[in-house]
Amino acid sequence: MADFVLHPRLAADSIFMRDLALCQLRLNNVKSVPWLVLVPRRADISEIHQLGAADRALLIEEIAQASRAFVELYAPDKINVGAIGNVVPQLHIHVIARFKSDPLWPDPVWGRVAAEAYAAEAIATIRQKLNAIDFGANPQT
Amino acid sequence: MADFVLHPRLAADSIFMRDLALCQLRLNNVKSVPWLVLVPRRADISEIHQLGAADRALLIEEIAQASRAFVELYAPDKINVGAIGNVVPQLHIHVIARFKSDPLWPDPVWGRVAAEAYAAEAIATIRQKLNAIDFGANPQT
Repeated sequence: MADFVLHPRLAADSIFMRDLALCQLRLNNVKSVPWLVLVPRRADISEIHQLGAADRALLIEEIAQASRAFVELYAPDKINVGAIGNVVPQLHIHVIARFKSDPLWPDPVWGRVAAEAYAAEAIATIRQKLNAIDFGANPQT
Repeated sequence: MADFVLHPRLAADSIFMRDLALCQLRLNNVKSVPWLVLVPRRADISEIHQLGAADRALLIEEIAQASRAFVELYAPDKINVGAIGNVVPQLHIHVIARFKSDPLWPDPVWGRVAAEAYAAEAIATIRQKLNAIDFGANPQT
């Protein structure tokens, strides 16, 4: 079985935050909207249905955990979740915090957001906050 | 607990295909792109993380099943999955078959597709095809 290698475009556009059980949790480096990217550490997977069932079960929990983290950190009006991959086929799931006050509301943000990067200190602060959150907790289990 | 009631906008824009274990499987009535909508039959849920863990496990399997159905029926180049809900808050998950030849490739389709409805016969044909697929099968379990 091939090893997991992060697609160079994902490596360039997002920043490693922490490893979850299945996924790398990454921060999309676009400061105008809180935007996480979950990348399952599995080789040669471009679609959710190509994961094994056990990995899919982990994936939906990690999507929920990332969503809850954003609710806790930012109290958004809505979470947007998407697995698109038309440009970067390696499976990656977007978890985005949306606000009625954000400039693109209610449109989806993909392909429409200004690519303004975070300052280094802002990234460090977000990583610290994400590391303080219990990603193993599933309160509604 | 409140009963599940389909949001009127989802009822107007999509067509009931069949019930899965958790979700209503609906066809978005836009003939330019094969587009399913999964609506969990749960009241007062707008986010994936608000579902119980057992429902989330069902949801990811039904997303995978809908994706596999599209692979089987249309052999698309990519599946796009999204839970957005900025306009219609009731949780619903888009599963869309994308082709490198489709007019919007590689952009996401949300908010950009011409709203041209299916003919009645086309809907009946798609329903028949979807009913012939085993949505309980999880070959990679």
